[in-house]
Amino acid sequence: VSPLDQRAVRQHNLSLVIRHVATYGVRSRAAIAVETGLNKATVSSLVAELIGRGLVVESAHTNVGTVGRPSRGVELAGNQIAGIGLCITEKHLRAYGLDLTGAVRFDESLVRDNPSTPPHEVLTDLATLASDALAAFERERITPVGVTVALPGLVDMSTGKLFVAPNLNWSEIPVVDLLRERLGSVGFRIHAENDANLAALAELWDGAGRRLRDFVYVDGGFGAGVGAGIVAGGELFRGAAGLAGEFGHTRVSRRGPRCRCGSRGCLENFAGWDALIRRAGLNGTGEDSVEILDVLRARAEAGERRTLEALSEVASWLSLSLVSLTNLLGPQAVVLGGCYAALSEWLVPRVEQDLRLSLSAPWSPCRVLVSELGREAAIRGAAGLALHQVLHDPTAVGGSFSEDRPYSDRTMFTPRTSSVRLAAGE
Amino acid sequence: VSPLDQRAVRQHNLSLVIRHVATYGVRSRAAIAVETGLNKATVSSLVAELIGRGLVVESAHTNVGTVGRPSRGVELAGNQIAGIGLCITEKHLRAYGLDLTGAVRFDESLVRDNPSTPPHEVLTDLATLASDALAAFERERITPVGVTVALPGLVDMSTGKLFVAPNLNWSEIPVVDLLRERLGSVGFRIHAENDANLAALAELWDGAGRRLRDFVYVDGGFGAGVGAGIVAGGELFRGAAGLAGEFGHTRVSRRGPRCRCGSRGCLENFAGWDALIRRAGLNGTGEDSVEILDVLRARAEAGERRTLEALSEVASWLSLSLVSLTNLLGPQAVVLGGCYAALSEWLVPRVEQDLRLSLSAPWSPCRVLVSELGREAAIRGAAGLALHQVLHDPTAVGGSFSEDRPYSDRTMFTPRTSSVRLAAGE
Repeated sequence: VSPLDQRAVRQHNLSLVIRHVATYGVRSRAAIAVETGLNKATVSSLVAELIGRGLVVESAHTNVGTVGRPSRGVELAGNQIAGIGLCITEKHLRAYGLDLTGAVRFDESLVRDNPSTPPHEVLTDLATLASDALAAFERERITPVGVTVALPGLVDMSTGKLFVAPNLNWSEIPVVDLLRERLGSVGFRIHAENDANLAALAELWDGAGRRLRDFVYVDGGFGAGVGAGIVAGGELFRGAAGLAGEFGHTRVSRRGPRCRCGSRGCLENFAGWDALIRRAGLNGTGEDSVEILDVLRARAEAGERRTLEALSEVASWLSLSLVSLTNLLGPQAVVLGGCYAALSEWLVPRVEQDLRLSLSAPWSPCRVLVSELGREAAIRGAAGLALHQVLHDPTAVGGSFSEDRPYSDRTMFTPRTSSVRLAAGE
Repeated sequence: VSPLDQRAVRQHNLSLVIRHVATYGVRSRAAIAVETGLNKATVSSLVAELIGRGLVVESAHTNVGTVGRPSRGVELAGNQIAGIGLCITEKHLRAYGLDLTGAVRFDESLVRDNPSTPPHEVLTDLATLASDALAAFERERITPVGVTVALPGLVDMSTGKLFVAPNLNWSEIPVVDLLRERLGSVGFRIHAENDANLAALAELWDGAGRRLRDFVYVDGGFGAGVGAGIVAGGELFRGAAGLAGEFGHTRVSRRGPRCRCGSRGCLENFAGWDALIRRAGLNGTGEDSVEILDVLRARAEAGERRTLEALSEVASWLSLSLVSLTNLLGPQAVVLGGCYAALSEWLVPRVEQDLRLSLSAPWSPCRVLVSELGREAAIRGAAGLALHQVLHDPTAVGGSFSEDRPYSDRTMFTPRTSSVRLAAGE
């Protein structure tokens, strides 16, 4: 066994233990040993390393786990590392920090008219928000382990370049490079990814999709756009070039106004937020989508006809496209997010009714779920990405442990029970 | 190392060698050793076992491969084993046999009106065709290794039950059980699978998709239906319950006649073969789709207006749905099959033009390809399935070699070069 192999084994087992704790909560060393099948001495050594790296801590709770006499447990450390998510929508900028326990450690946003602002100005303001987050973490002695920017468009994940975001009027913007210029030297990587993909991951890790392996997160943004993140077999389905999921450009008509994408009859022009509030006569009622949403919901609850008709129209086009999608992909569920989650009372019944017309419905019905993370979904996914990378390679943080420890566990270990899975898949 | 592990290693290496020969053709033992990185003695032992199992033979060709002095090569055996495909469409029954070299060893079909015939009668006739194939192989001393039935509907692969085939008017038919009753005891497994999925696999193994890993095979049947087989990362994308790919029920309109699925506005009612010939005024012109196709093509070539308009209408609806599909899935290509392949001159230009409107087209254009296997695609996939299973586990055939051979190669082997992949992925 070469030294490299030993490191790989150690890394694998560290990841196994921390993901076990992430999935099942406070656990004694004895319980971890029984439940993962690793031997006790190895578990003690692994836990010691995870504590040394600042990833788990001794818990105040005792007598946890399934067997043995009372003993102290360990749990994920909340005060040591954080992932940072940044988000650009048509109308907001936001920075958000999550720690390893899933607690929100930072959340600031700016209301902005991003489509009317030059990209470099938007990114300067976003970098300022990110710097505020970094400064806050420095004061709290929390180590940031990564930044991910959620973008409403096609993103080249390998370079961090935004190919195009029709609803921002942006194209060919090297978002990660421009942010790196503005943030200066930081000790971690900066990524960019499509916002609906990140929202889907957040729902998979932490939300409506946490018991599912195959679902589609449908993202009704609070702007013109509609997106989707496809989860297949517990992982993001990205397509050949990572650009899959453009559900808003499902063509529901051969006619209709020209879409920003150049096509006609795209779903988002019939069922996006902007189309909805225009049809409901709420265009220009308020600048902020939170205000407009309140008005819209109040009018719908009061039975105002024009509002109900507008919602019914959106439900009809959305469910038409979702029938096509479920026929094509056969998911376990669709998860309605963004404005669709906020208006779910008026949308879900129609979508549920229409999905019964999917060809596979009698044998494998597709459930209609509502996002549990609401407006936080995409940015939680962004902030969580770096944290999930740490769960998969705990040696990426706490450098003092990376080199010269003895390796007592020499065989790559596979868990005994199928219930022990990646936290991401639970 | 337990005996089980030794067998697994041997099986892995047998598969590696036979897939290498399947991918690259005639190869000397020396070339196989160099190209896979296995040592020469191991390769000789593996080749001897593959010869013993009747899977490869000494080739008449010499001096093959990349290096070394002239030596005899080995190649896949054409006269030893065969896979059998069966197919039920709206208008045909067919049985088809392929050997390991890809040569067609049996091909018989019946023209039938299957939707008007009770399923048990259809399956009795299909079993008769299958028996003919088995008898022919017995005469030729070829061992059948598996039967797969291609069905135009939702299939539960685990039980071989057809859930529903709207265009056959069939539902809840235990196809594999009924075939097994009729065929009696056979020494191999009988599977059933959706026909578009099998066609997609055939194109991946042998046709327009053989250099691709992410594509969608679009199956315009010569009946009412339109289907799809989705290949993602070199494998079939089956969805949560194996029922994905129902592209024909993409809803292109909120109105339109009620579809057999219970919905309205499904693509196949606008762009399926039956819709096309109805619109072209060819309904009832001939019983056989081959004849009708000839008439249709002749009229289109002569510039007959009604025919060209009908083709243009089909192209328009098909490409509308393909834009939605490519926006959602981001494939490298769509492969037009069935009647769409037979009429590709009148369809491809419009589809290519519209796919340029996919959001990702400037960065990751989706190509439009035409099936290379035509009407054989689904049934070649069906016949090939069992053969591909043998390539992945050569120990499944030629039982005399399965137990007491010495195992000289004890370590699981991974090819040196990334170019050595599963034949399925090439």
